[in-house]
Amino acid sequence: MLNSSDKRAAIVLSGCGVFDGSEIHEAVVTLLNLQKRKAKVSFFAPDTKQAGTINHLSATPAEDGRNVLVESARIARGNISPLSEFKAEDCDMIIFVGGFGAAKNLCTFAFDGAACSVNPDVERSIKGMLSAGKKLGFMCIAPVIAARVISNGVKLTIGSDSATAKAIEDMGARHVPCGVSSFVKDEKFNVYSTPAYMLASDTAELDAGISAMIAEMMR
Amino acid sequence: MLNSSDKRAAIVLSGCGVFDGSEIHEAVVTLLNLQKRKAKVSFFAPDTKQAGTINHLSATPAEDGRNVLVESARIARGNISPLSEFKAEDCDMIIFVGGFGAAKNLCTFAFDGAACSVNPDVERSIKGMLSAGKKLGFMCIAPVIAARVISNGVKLTIGSDSATAKAIEDMGARHVPCGVSSFVKDEKFNVYSTPAYMLASDTAELDAGISAMIAEMMR
Repeated sequence: MLNSSDKRAAIVLSGCGVFDGSEIHEAVVTLLNLQKRKAKVSFFAPDTKQAGTINHLSATPAEDGRNVLVESARIARGNISPLSEFKAEDCDMIIFVGGFGAAKNLCTFAFDGAACSVNPDVERSIKGMLSAGKKLGFMCIAPVIAARVISNGVKLTIGSDSATAKAIEDMGARHVPCGVSSFVKDEKFNVYSTPAYMLASDTAELDAGISAMIAEMMR
Repeated sequence: MLNSSDKRAAIVLSGCGVFDGSEIHEAVVTLLNLQKRKAKVSFFAPDTKQAGTINHLSATPAEDGRNVLVESARIARGNISPLSEFKAEDCDMIIFVGGFGAAKNLCTFAFDGAACSVNPDVERSIKGMLSAGKKLGFMCIAPVIAARVISNGVKLTIGSDSATAKAIEDMGARHVPCGVSSFVKDEKFNVYSTPAYMLASDTAELDAGISAMIAEMMR
């Protein structure tokens, strides 16, 4: 059995910024909790155009076209690979952080709800980990991706938001309400989820839930 | 005397991404350490054009002109003010995180070395805090700004890089070598500094130095 320092974790990003990409605090707090436990972390993101760019000061659409992989590289300090290169055999766990990018760039949930489609590289990476019996983590809005791809009653949480919980159930998954400092574990599929900024009011609360989930995933 | 939960901290950003803006991990780990200690945090950045944009995947210059305040808003989730509105009376401490943005957008150190000039709002905010006898924190490359503005033998660290240490001394400050998990305190000017990513190899090491500095600043 691997000890903590042998564990290899992949973090999947969807851009850089809560309104059009990955939620930055979730990404960094996830990285911190993995590296504190001596995991070897790799970053991945799809090499595709962002669904849009949002000016995060004015919260209005901006003109410039940005690329998901290129912007995600800001969070990864340049050390990131296209998600098309992800191989389940190279890691022990994969973690999808939240932000609107997860619902706009990794799938179309922000536009299509329960009828959403999922980026092919995202779908392939999830199915590869499931086939290998390895661990998958999802936080904030990212569990909608798991609901769409895995379905079959997989237990997931997005906290307590009733509309999102209903959409998760509509996609054939089972929503389990969960507090900000806890997480939900699906034993059958090896899938973990935590509410993160669906409920957290600051980074201290964010860290409580993410660290609880990662501690369990690293066991 | 204020207890921890009354403390008000300002974090000054310089964009979003290590090569042309704020170092994202440093910004989030700073925020996390402040909020874990119940500080009330406000973000500020100058409302000015970035010195340039770097594609963080290819590490090459990109064409698009970005604004320091607008990009910093990504790290702040939209809750940020122009640095021109900063008032020393509204906070107990100010912290400058690193990244090339600190040396390109907050001052011109990346281009001019010890002969650098400093953004007027940055200079005014530092002088306002000094006049009020309040605490100032600088990490990574940001201590070069303190060297330029404060000078007068202020004790600072950027870790152990000899060229940067020499530039700090050339600006009239005093460089003190420091390990990654520690910090340097100047008692006379109430200035704190820590090497952060000038020495850290991952976020666990980064957190060690930043948490040590912030624990002392919050005392």
